[in-house]
Order: sequence, then C-alpha cells, then structure tokens
Amino acid sequence: MPTIVALSTPAGSGALGVIRLSGPDAVAIANAVFKGKDLTKQATHTLHFGLIMDQETVLDEVVVSLFLAPKSYTKENVVEISCHGSSYIIQRIISLLIEKGARAAKPGEFTLQAFLNGAFDLSKAEAVADLIASNSKASHDIAMQQMRGGFADELQGLREQLIHFASMIELELDFAEEDVEFANRDQLKELVLQINRVIARLVQSFELGNVIKNGIPIVIAGKPNVGKSTLLNALLNEDRAIVSDIAGTTRDTIEDEINIGGLVFRFIDTAGIRETADLIEAKGVERTLEKMKQAKLILYMADATQSFEEIESQLESLKRQDIPYLFFVNKAELLDTAQKKALKGLNGQFITAKEQVGVEALKDSLLETVNLKNINTNETILTNIRHVEALKHTEEALNRVLMNVDNPITSDFLAMDIKQALHYLGEIVGEVTTDDLLENIFSKFCIGK
Amino acid sequence: MPTIVALSTPAGSGALGVIRLSGPDAVAIANAVFKGKDLTKQATHTLHFGLIMDQETVLDEVVVSLFLAPKSYTKENVVEISCHGSSYIIQRIISLLIEKGARAAKPGEFTLQAFLNGAFDLSKAEAVADLIASNSKASHDIAMQQMRGGFADELQGLREQLIHFASMIELELDFAEEDVEFANRDQLKELVLQINRVIARLVQSFELGNVIKNGIPIVIAGKPNVGKSTLLNALLNEDRAIVSDIAGTTRDTIEDEINIGGLVFRFIDTAGIRETADLIEAKGVERTLEKMKQAKLILYMADATQSFEEIESQLESLKRQDIPYLFFVNKAELLDTAQKKALKGLNGQFITAKEQVGVEALKDSLLETVNLKNINTNETILTNIRHVEALKHTEEALNRVLMNVDNPITSDFLAMDIKQALHYLGEIVGEVTTDDLLENIFSKFCIGK
Repeated sequence: MPTIVALSTPAGSGALGVIRLSGPDAVAIANAVFKGKDLTKQATHTLHFGLIMDQETVLDEVVVSLFLAPKSYTKENVVEISCHGSSYIIQRIISLLIEKGARAAKPGEFTLQAFLNGAFDLSKAEAVADLIASNSKASHDIAMQQMRGGFADELQGLREQLIHFASMIELELDFAEEDVEFANRDQLKELVLQINRVIARLVQSFELGNVIKNGIPIVIAGKPNVGKSTLLNALLNEDRAIVSDIAGTTRDTIEDEINIGGLVFRFIDTAGIRETADLIEAKGVERTLEKMKQAKLILYMADATQSFEEIESQLESLKRQDIPYLFFVNKAELLDTAQKKALKGLNGQFITAKEQVGVEALKDSLLETVNLKNINTNETILTNIRHVEALKHTEEALNRVLMNVDNPITSDFLAMDIKQALHYLGEIVGEVTTDDLLENIFSKFCIGK
Repeated sequence: MPTIVALSTPAGSGALGVIRLSGPDAVAIANAVFKGKDLTKQATHTLHFGLIMDQETVLDEVVVSLFLAPKSYTKENVVEISCHGSSYIIQRIISLLIEKGARAAKPGEFTLQAFLNGAFDLSKAEAVADLIASNSKASHDIAMQQMRGGFADELQGLREQLIHFASMIELELDFAEEDVEFANRDQLKELVLQINRVIARLVQSFELGNVIKNGIPIVIAGKPNVGKSTLLNALLNEDRAIVSDIAGTTRDTIEDEINIGGLVFRFIDTAGIRETADLIEAKGVERTLEKMKQAKLILYMADATQSFEEIESQLESLKRQDIPYLFFVNKAELLDTAQKKALKGLNGQFITAKEQVGVEALKDSLLETVNLKNINTNETILTNIRHVEALKHTEEALNRVLMNVDNPITSDFLAMDIKQALHYLGEIVGEVTTDDLLENIFSKFCIGK
C-alpha cells in the first residue's frame, strides 16, 4: 500500500487547511519535515505543535494529528497536518511531502484504502460521498442511515441464508448419484420469496430516494409577469437567510434549488418555466409537456388579470392529461369577493408573492402534495442507481431459482442461479468487485476523502 | 471571555470541515453534543472519535481535537471538530453549538483572543493574516519572518532602552529643584539616532514590502495584435501548470497576477494595456501615463511589422520621461538579420511568445530589472501601512526629542516626547491599543481564524 497525500479541506483561502497523509510511511514522511517532537515516538490519537521545515526554511507553524494503524479512518497510519489556509503554503507542504516519498492521492483514495482494509463495505463507502454532497435534512438522513450500515446489514442477513442454501445444493451435486436432498426446497422457496419482497421494497424506495437526493422536480407554470420569479425569490431568499445566519457556511446555491421543510425542491429551469406560459395552445406544447412529465408536480400560477374562463380551461387540460398540480392565484389583493369565490371553486389558493403573503401556506401545500413530509429515514431508502441495478439482477436470478426449484433435473441450474444472485448481492457491499467498478465508484469522490 | 465558534476551513464541499470552538466552556459545549468518551475528562492534545448528536439524531461521525488552556492557540480551551465537509452538516453542527451556548465568532476573533491573552503581540497577529493571504515565496517569507517575531523583537529592544531613559527623566522632574541629571543626554541622543536609523530602514523597506505583498506592477505596452495577451498567456499558463501539478490546490488566480521566480507580478488591467498601444500620440495620453507611473516597469513590445523609426521614437519618449522599460520584439522569426541588428542597437530582445521562445530570458530580464531577485527575507521588510504610519509618528516625536535634548529648560517636553514615541512604538506591538484599532485590524481577518 503506498503512502498518499492530499488536501482534505476545500481549496481556497481560509484560517486552516488540513493535509492528510495515509499509508505505512505516513508518520516517517511527516516526521522528515517536522520540527518539534519526534513523531515516530508518539502515541496514537495525539496532537503535536511544531514547524514544517523545507531544509532551513520555516514553511509554517502547524498542528499534527497522529492516528496509528489500525486505529484510523483508512486503518493505515494517518497523519493530518493542520496548517494555515494559504494555497501557497498548502502547495509547498504537499510538494515537500511528495518529495519525501508520498504520492498525490486520487479522488476518494483514502476511502478506497479504508474499504480495501475492511474498514467498511462498499455501500457504506458510497454513503460517505453522499453524506458530503447532502444538502437537506432528508438527503443527509438517508446518507447517514446508509453509512451507519442499515442497508448493508439488512442485505447481509439474507445473503448469509442464501449462502447456506448454495452450499447445501453444492453438496447435493457432489452426491448426485445418490439422489439426496440436503436443501429443503420449501424453505429455499420461502427464503427466495422473502428476499424478493425485500428487493421489491428497496427498488421501489429508489423512486423516493432519487427524488430526495437530486431534488423534487417542480415546474412553475403560468403566463409571463404572473409573478413566478417573485415567488421563486420569496422562497429562495428565506432559504438563503437561514444559511447565511451562520457566517462562513454560505454554500454554492444553485439558483433554483430550494430547501423547503428539509427537502430540496428543484425548480425546472426558468427557460422551461417561461415556455409553459400558455399550457396547451402554445407552439412549444411538446417541450412543455415533456418538462411537465419530468416534474413531480406543476405549480400553476394565475393572477387577478386573467379571465376565469381562461384559467378554468388551462386547469381542465392539466386534469385531462393526469398531470398533478397545485393552483395559486397571485396578486390576490386585487381580487373582489365574487372572483375569489369562483376561483376557490377551482381549488385555488391565494398569495401575494411580493409581500410574502400566503407563501408559508403554499409551502405546506407543496409538502403535503408531494407527500414526503414524514419520510421514515430509519427505513432503508435507496439513492444509488448501482444498487438498484444489482438488486434487479439479483431478482432475475432468483426468479430463475423459483422456476427450477421443484425440478430435480435442474439442480445444476439451481446452484448456478443462486450463485449468480449471491454475486450481484455481493457487488452491492463490495464482496465482489472489479477494478473497473472501484474506479467508477471512487473517481466520483472528492480529492482528499 | 465568551466561548466562540466558527468554521475554520474554507466554505464549500470537501472531504473535511473543521469547526473551531474557543473559550472557557468550549469543552463542556462540545461534550454536550458529543457521543463517545466524556470529553471533560480527557487530557490536552488528544483526539477522540465519536458522533455529534442532535438529541436522538446522528448529525455526523467526527474526530474531536482537544487543546486545554493555556496550551492552545488562543490560550483558552479550544476544541476542533473535524466533520464531513458538507455545508449542510457544518451548518447544523454550528447551529447546535450555538444552541448549547457558544457564540458565532467574528472575523479574526480567535486571533484576537490569543492576542488579548498575551499569546503574541499585535504585529505577529497581523502577520497571521498576511501568511494566509501569501501567494508567493517572497510574500510568504516576509509574513513568516514577521510572525516568528523578527520585526517585533527588533523594536522591543530599542523600546526598552527608551523606557529606561523615560523613567530617568521622570525622576529628574521629581527632583527638578535640585537640578540633577539622571539621564545622560549624550547616551539619549545616541539611542534616538540609532532608533531613527532603524526606523528609516524599516520605513524604506515598505516600498519593497508593499510591492511584494501586492504584486509588482508592470504595464505591457505596444500596438494592438503585437502579441501582448499571447505573452501574458505564455507566462500565466506555465504558472498555472505548476499550481495544478498538485491536484486540489488550485487557487483563485486573478487572471493577471503572475508568479515569476517567487515574486508576484501584477500586470495592469488589460483595458489599460490596450490603451497604451500608441504611447504618446494617442488621445488617452494622460491616462496612459498615469498607468505607467503606477508601474515599476514598462514592458514595451513591438513586432516585426513595425518600422524601425516608429519603434525608436516610442522608446525615445519613454526615455525622455524617465520611465524604466524593457524592450521586446515579438514574432522575431519574421525579422531579417539587418532588422535584428538595428533593433539590437535599441537594446531589443527577441521572443516568439506563441512558441514560448525567449520567454525564459524575458523572465530573467524582468527579475533582473526589478532587482528583487535576491531579497533577504531574514531582514525585516515592512508590508503593513499601519506600521509605517506608527513608525513615522515615532520618528517625529524623536526628532522633537533631539531638538530639546540639550536644553535643560525643556525637560518637561523631553519627557512628553519620549512618551509619545513610546506610545507609537507600543501601538505596533499592541502594548497600546484602542477598541477601534483592534476592530480595524481583526475585521480584515477571515472568519474562523
């Protein structure tokens, strides 16, 4: 195992930068550039103040953290150098450590080391990346649940029972001429059905998980100037205010991703929103409809200047096409009582986006309609398409098992299909891996993790 | 002293984020949200793995660093929480710590705590900010020299001698009627002259220090299409290549700041550069000249298509106005021998910017001409205008001391002026401070430092 090095904190100027070294020579390499205590003689989980020296030049005053194998993230020796957060200093120190024998770490390589050393299974490693990317309560909770093992543990139990049957059937094949049956076919069938039920539930949870991870797609539709961007701003500003309450944590907000009630709503790009002004009659009907089908929900927004008939016909066409929607009337202060009554008949709700009137109620309706307000994040929710694919392959193999289970002639196939199912289950937790698979997973990590 | 909290690593997604707590309650506050060992019972300079809990919810798996007072940066109890680098998680943890009694730290407040607790003097505190902002070998070395005390120590010795004289003269005033002289006037004069020599050297060093800290201003002048941006790119790309050698350390390069030989050259904005195409005849003469006077040096660039006479007249006008310049001919491969000979007579050097031919020689000429190639960064070089101002005020007071030193009638003034000089010297190291002064200095720091 090589000794690798990378900056583990985000690039840019800051008070601190943390440079991480991991591998058998981590302590020796750090010690070669450190002036202070002899790091090779210190206990694990200790902190040491000192200087980083490039020969006679002081590069920085630093604090070094020592984590000795196997009591570290990677189960290798890990040294973290907490230096001043200047890009110049960080670059100099990393160069120096490379000069002393470390190698620049690839994206996710620390986590790959940890996985290869058995610190956790592959699904947990993937959850680390999801955790770093999490931007809402829901996506955070799901990633945390996966990282802390919920998903993998659930599969592992079923997998072990299946392994038991696989070995029994192997045994039968060894005694093929004696026509014995070590593996109880009814129990096997029951186990397979049970696994398939779990798989079906997990695969189904992906629809939810995907939406939570990537944001719930919403289209705001309505005529130009009806107040769509005012509404977006009203929703967005409040969200931003929460974030900037804590100075220094401003995140790279994508303009149209908005956190509402712990869920991220992804408002389909404004170009699309503009095009949906006239829902049916407009030229761009197809593109508009396409956008709408990507959406979980349409926010249809009208204002006081539109005729009742126009609004009614638009809503009718949404209904005809089974497109779920919420209907809002903006600039509600301009409506008279009769208009309000008529629009209420169409299930209209009233807002004045500019003054933030009715925006809270709109949020509640949104959450209620997408029906994700009370996600049980203690239940496993899949967010990773790789896991879904592996589970679907497992299910296919298990369905073949069910087909052949009662046919004594096909014991060979039975054994093969069970092995196949085990193979795909094993891929999820990483008991079966290929270099390509690992490369594919870890290349998506950030450097330094 | 309150307990303060902030993110100390740069904002943004990354493998790690470090949240810093400092103050008497730092350990207790961290312990209130930490599931793992009891942090209040652990030794200083130790690391602890555990969970950050918001009631029953796991917010993150973290490593906590403990630095117990006075063995910490601020000399208070300091806890650093190294968490996953998700803005969402960081925001949640900081909110939680604030809920438990910490206060969001202001910019530079950790360093302010350290200064107030006597961890270092004010000039060293300022050097911390310079160190973080350093982006070249020269600016780094100067900041490091200042942080490690070179500057303050030099002043401190002189200041102590001056304090001795101040107290002697005070004593004389107490015995005024007896006409004694405790303070030897010749020794005092000598000391004052010595201090003034040091001050003169330091003030003079600021010209250099300022240029190193903010970049050496250079104007590239020449007709349009002569290859000015090609040259900038040639210089810039190479610089970038060096930086991006180390993945993850890409810094926010300002397009026209270029690191050459450990010095940052600041190329005056391209608008300015474009306007200097025709040096004298053009309309924008005044603005052009203004730009040129800001510059330490003009890179005057011609190409093979220009007539000898045109070039000669431009260079003549630069000389007439005492503007230092280097003269380069681009696209040199298009010149014939006669042309080359003529241009050499004007001290021309030849490059082909596009092919990077001659660019190294250009760099060497640049470094040689600005004459900063071998800065002695062990000598104190001032980079801070505040220090310069304080030193100038000191000098003024000391000059008044010199004026009055031989006049026994003016002992009162003498004492006052020495005290004044001591006051200004004290301001530099922070022995004399006001809230405004501190506010002014620390508000320029980043959050979390």
